[in-house]
Order: sequence, then C-alpha cells, then structure tokens
Amino acid sequence: MHTTLTCSATGQTYPIDRLQNLSEAGKPLLAGYDLESLRETFTPDVIRERSIRSMWRFHEVLPVRHPEDAVSLGEGMTPLLRCRCRGPFAGFNDLFIKDESFNPTGSFKARGMSAAVTRAANLGAEVIALPSAGNAAGAATYYAARAGMQCYLFMPEDTPPANIIESVVGGAKVFLVNGLISDCGKLVRQGCEKFGWFDLSTLKEPFRIEGKKTMGYELAFDLADEDDTEELQLPDVIFYPTGGGTGLIGMWKAFNEMEQLGWIGSKRPRMVVVQAEGCSPIVKAFHEGADHAELFPNAHTIAAGLRVPAAVGDFLMLSVLRESGGTAVSITDEELMQGVYEIAQHQGLYACPEGGAVWKAAQKLVESGWMKPDERIVLFNTGTGLKYNHLIDLGDLPRLDHTDPNCLDVIEA
Amino acid sequence: MHTTLTCSATGQTYPIDRLQNLSEAGKPLLAGYDLESLRETFTPDVIRERSIRSMWRFHEVLPVRHPEDAVSLGEGMTPLLRCRCRGPFAGFNDLFIKDESFNPTGSFKARGMSAAVTRAANLGAEVIALPSAGNAAGAATYYAARAGMQCYLFMPEDTPPANIIESVVGGAKVFLVNGLISDCGKLVRQGCEKFGWFDLSTLKEPFRIEGKKTMGYELAFDLADEDDTEELQLPDVIFYPTGGGTGLIGMWKAFNEMEQLGWIGSKRPRMVVVQAEGCSPIVKAFHEGADHAELFPNAHTIAAGLRVPAAVGDFLMLSVLRESGGTAVSITDEELMQGVYEIAQHQGLYACPEGGAVWKAAQKLVESGWMKPDERIVLFNTGTGLKYNHLIDLGDLPRLDHTDPNCLDVIEA
Repeated sequence: MHTTLTCSATGQTYPIDRLQNLSEAGKPLLAGYDLESLRETFTPDVIRERSIRSMWRFHEVLPVRHPEDAVSLGEGMTPLLRCRCRGPFAGFNDLFIKDESFNPTGSFKARGMSAAVTRAANLGAEVIALPSAGNAAGAATYYAARAGMQCYLFMPEDTPPANIIESVVGGAKVFLVNGLISDCGKLVRQGCEKFGWFDLSTLKEPFRIEGKKTMGYELAFDLADEDDTEELQLPDVIFYPTGGGTGLIGMWKAFNEMEQLGWIGSKRPRMVVVQAEGCSPIVKAFHEGADHAELFPNAHTIAAGLRVPAAVGDFLMLSVLRESGGTAVSITDEELMQGVYEIAQHQGLYACPEGGAVWKAAQKLVESGWMKPDERIVLFNTGTGLKYNHLIDLGDLPRLDHTDPNCLDVIEA
Repeated sequence: MHTTLTCSATGQTYPIDRLQNLSEAGKPLLAGYDLESLRETFTPDVIRERSIRSMWRFHEVLPVRHPEDAVSLGEGMTPLLRCRCRGPFAGFNDLFIKDESFNPTGSFKARGMSAAVTRAANLGAEVIALPSAGNAAGAATYYAARAGMQCYLFMPEDTPPANIIESVVGGAKVFLVNGLISDCGKLVRQGCEKFGWFDLSTLKEPFRIEGKKTMGYELAFDLADEDDTEELQLPDVIFYPTGGGTGLIGMWKAFNEMEQLGWIGSKRPRMVVVQAEGCSPIVKAFHEGADHAELFPNAHTIAAGLRVPAAVGDFLMLSVLRESGGTAVSITDEELMQGVYEIAQHQGLYACPEGGAVWKAAQKLVESGWMKPDERIVLFNTGTGLKYNHLIDLGDLPRLDHTDPNCLDVIEA
C-alpha cells in the first residue's frame, strides 16, 4: 500500500485516502511507498514462494491494503519468450519478447486498469469514464464489470471494430465520437463534471502507472529464471512501443523502487521509445533535445496504440530516455506490419502492430550501430494481434472442391 | 517421458520411438508412464518450486526427455477465476471458471498442440497437416512456426474469419474447402499419403490429449491454492464444452495418473459434457445408454468448437461420463450467447460461445435438481471471445458530435 501521492512536476503532496486525478499543476501524481520498512519482509524469495499468480503478488508496492482487495482477472505474470535465432532474427542471440497478449482482454492495459479500478472501487467510485481508441476500452470495461461498476467509454468512430465489440459485450456504455481521442477526452472531462464520473484517462489518476510498473518487477524475475539464478537481472536494452508512455515511466519507477528495496544495483537498461512515423512526438522532442513534446500534427498510423499526438507524461518519458542513455526511433506502418509477419512466422506469436514496431526498431538500431545484436534485448509486445485482424489482407486463398478426386494436385510436393 | 503407447480399445502396444497415428484397430493410442518410479521425485512440492511457468512444469508426465525439448509458447498455468455471486450467478457460491483464453493463440488448443508438435518435431517430422474449423488451426500454425515446421490446414469455407486470418499471418498453408470438417479430414488423409505429411488431427496422434490433460493437473493445484492448503483438491463437478472431447478424456487420464502417483485419492468429480442442440451426438448417445455415438446429421451451431458430428473418442467420453456419475446436456445457440453476455457483464471475462454454453448448462442442471448451486463447480472457458466477434450484433450505438456543446444531453444522470 502506498503512503504518499506526490505531483511529478512540483513535488507537492496530496492525501492518499480520497479519489485523485491530476495535481493542481495539471501534472500526474505518483504513488510512493515506505520501501525502507518493507526491506525485511518484502524480498524476492518471499515473492517467489507466493501462490498468487498475478501481478498482485507484488501487492506491497500496489494500491491495496490486502491482496484480497484487488479487482483481479489474472493480469500479469506474462511469459518472457526467448527468440529463436533464425531468418531476420539471426545474430540476435539474447533477444526476448515479453508477451503482454497473455493479459485479460489481451493487452498490457489490463495491468493499469486492474490497479486503477481496484483503488477507485476501494475508495467508493461507482462510475468510471475514459476516452479510448484501442485496448484501454476493453480493459476498463471488464475490470469495471468485475468490480460491479458502470463504465462510460468515448471512442473515435475509426476505432478498430474489435475494441468496440468487446466493450459492448462487457456492458460498457459506448459512445462513438466524430473526432480524435483528444476530442473524446474533452467529453470525458465534461461528463465527469456533469455526472460525477471518475476520470480514468491515462496518467490522469495515479494508479494505472502502478499497475504498469509491474512489467518492470516481473522482468527482473523472468530474467533471473532464464539464467537459473536467484539474483534479479535486468536486460541491456528495453524496446517499448510508446503512446501515452505509462509503461515506460512505470518500469523506470519500478527499477528505482527495486534499488531502494535492495534488490538490484544502480545499473539500468537503456530505454528505447518506439513510435510510428505518422505520430512520433516523443521521437521528435528527444532528438531536438526538448524537455516537452509538441502536439504532433495530423497524427496517423494503423497502430492504434501509438496514435497519441500529445501525452500528459511527455516530460517524464524524455527524462527516462536521457537518464537511461536510451533513444527514440520511429517506424513506418509498412515496416511495422512486416514486423508482425516476421514475429509470427519465425517466433510463433501473433503480435499487435506495436509489437511489430519494436522488433523493426531493434533491427534498425543494430543497422545504425547504436546497439549490438548480441546484447540482452527485451521487446515488449503490448497486445494480441487478434484485435487487429481488420488490417490483414488475406489475398486469394486457394479453394478446393472436395468432390474433385484430383483437387490436391494444386499442391506441390 | 512416456514409456508405453497402448491402443485405447484393444490394449495392443506400439513402439514409442517413432511417429504414430491411430492403432491398427483405428482407435486412439494412449501414452503411459512409469508412475511408480516417479513417486519419489515427482511430487506436488517439487512442482510448486519449479520456475517453469507453463504446463511443462509437469514434464515428467509429458512426451519429452528434458523440459528444454518442449516447443513452448507459455501454454497452460491459466487462471482459475472465482465467480462473484450476483445477478444470475446468485447462489452459486463455490463456482469457478478455468479461463483457457490465457493460452497462446487464445485457446485450450495450445496445450494439445504444444505437446503434439513437440513430439513430432523431436521425432523428425517436418510437415504437419490437419483439418480445422476453429481454434486448432491457429494453435497448430504457431507451434509449427515456433518449431520451424511447415503446417498445412484444410478449413471449411464457413470457418470464422479470425481463425483463418491468424493462420495466414502465422505462415500456414491454408486451403478453404467447400465442405464439412469431415471432408477436410479426408483431404488431410490423402495429403499425408501423397506427400508424407504428419497427421495432427484430434486424437489421431497420441499427444494432443497429453497436453490437454494438464488442465486436470493444474486444476488440482489451483484449488489447493484457493483453499490455502498443500493438499491437492478436485471439485465436485466439472463442466466441459465437448467437440472432440480430448480435454475431457485427458483430464480423466490426469486424475488417474495423479492417484497412481499418490497425490489424490479415488474420489472424482462428476464430469458433465456440454454440447450445442444442433450438434449433440454425445448427449444423445449418453441418454440412450449407447457405448458409441452415431454421426449427428445436419450438424449446426455457431459455437465452432462444438460442431463435431462424429468424434473418434466417443466411446472414451461416454465411459468417463458413466464412471464419474456425470451427465450430458445440450444448449441452444441463443442460450449460449446469452451465457457469453452474462459472464462478460457479471464476471468480467469475454468467453467464447463454448464458455457461455457451460455456464448455461450449470444453471440448467441446478434448475433440474441434478446439482446444488453451492457445490464446488468448475466451468471450462476454452477460449477467448475475441475470435467470435463476428457473432456480435452491435445494434445502433449512440454517436456524438463533439462540436455540439450539448451533445452529452443524451446521457441520463
């Protein structure tokens, strides 16, 4: 359970026992823990022995007093898949994919929503609202359903159909809006004022980031298992597909907490932000040396999770990139779809376009000499490709007439 | 690692060190293990301490010499979700859903394919083939890709689009056939003869069932965790949506193995087969007291996984039902879709139609007095609803014009 809530820009503190959105400065609030007093009882060995098979095995650094208070659907504890060195992956001999498609509702959004809905429910919220053009919608819907809360969703009309359908099945109140996600966000703010809904937009409440940070905790355990050692391990480089950036900021927070807990030293992975060429505000700001990102005009990409032209946590992401010695890369839509096919056919998992993007970014940074292929690299696949089936062109599949005894002749031996 | 392969009908034994399909009697082969010699080293405590986070933590009773030989994408270790007692679920106060949508490729088929592809790859097969009208296609595709094998799929033209798309992305050779799954099966047999492919059809090789049986092993550990005890636990009743029935037969096999290992006693859950009214050969045979099921004419249901008019393991399923004191129930398509909505909106998970069916079957058997609602009941949700989005009618969703300052007026407080 957290003990403080602090403005990420001004350091001002806020009470922890009531529903909170942004700080007075309009910036995200971050949760703090009394890590010093946890050092004795909250250790890697204790955690390994727990039977809780979800991210709530880390409940001491999550917003609950007791693990039973969590609104959980089995989120987290996703596999870390070692990539096979073949085809375009040849030479990458210490490459892993953290496969977040294993989460409830098929994406990493489940982690954030599990934490945020848990805290909102425990503080008495009955209705949540958010804008979404992708996976956040389904995650919010199903955690709200589990908690017995009502969920209002405002979604751009061009949101992928799978995201709309799953939300409707789960009982969310879905409104389609003739605008961008930012227009939807405005309607959420108006609705929250008018109807008293609780705003669950990215980084506008303090706990989605807490849920997402568990990706950082898990990774350290996953790699220790991989090396068959008790000692927690971090990789050399982490590639993260970045829209709102909650996961990136969250993992960085996790690493700092783990150091304060005495679990790891001061060494950190280089963090790499991956965006789509048609919407790359953080890439632009990073390479221009800016502290904040400007709104990216005419944002467009088929990777719905990357279609975030302005992120409220921009300054936090840029600071993580610089502190970690990382970088930021953009990928075309064509490249990222090629990445999806390559991961599917060579590694055996159907990644989302954002997952395709991080793989192509890793290739690009090896080609540019920024990174060696045999470094220990972790790619985050943030969701299942199944929700992006509408992007796949099947072409003309061969059709067989089973009444024709020679119908198999079309197949070459 | 198994030590024997035995015909399930005649008891004749077969060599374990080569690729095998059906026995000479045309019946499934079952793998046997030297369980006596495993009793010392293969114990629940040993398994709990393993870091392997997939069904391969049970590798001693799976077809590998070493766990590293497994073709694994993180299958198994799915959550057992305790249902909340509300709405239509009121009164069911010890009800659980084993949520198999957490598997790679989003369904329980992953378990079987992981085991079967592992064994086929280790014995040198390079090309696999199978008929599929649903989730088996994607599972075979991605395990074949992981193993570096070629995969030929023969699919009825009316197979749900999601199953076709994921298979194409994963690099399978997909052929659409103007017929039923049985017609596709015939083409697979012809192709195997003509081209030397290995036939991976349900129960036509010995190891899909071995993968599926891990659902039974896991369940015993899941329920022990739930009760916070070391002692393995089985439920009173298991509801299983039944097409080919590999999982039902597999779990029953697992329980018998666990008894021989000294892990559990002789008590067993009552096993309930759930089928769709439009395709219920096992339900019919069970209630008629038959040992085998007849081909179900004009098979039709929207639950693609239940559209199996004739199952090669029919006699094994019927024997499990009778030995366990179980029963068999059929559900209309309308009811099972209602079940999907109820699970989504009251429990927070988007089940496949087959998952909806088992819930409605449980309700039905309480109404009939066959079962009390407060018994310990486990429902198997065999896959994600995301692959069945085409069945959802969205109706007219409300559309908002964000430039209209009064657009939120349509919402009632």
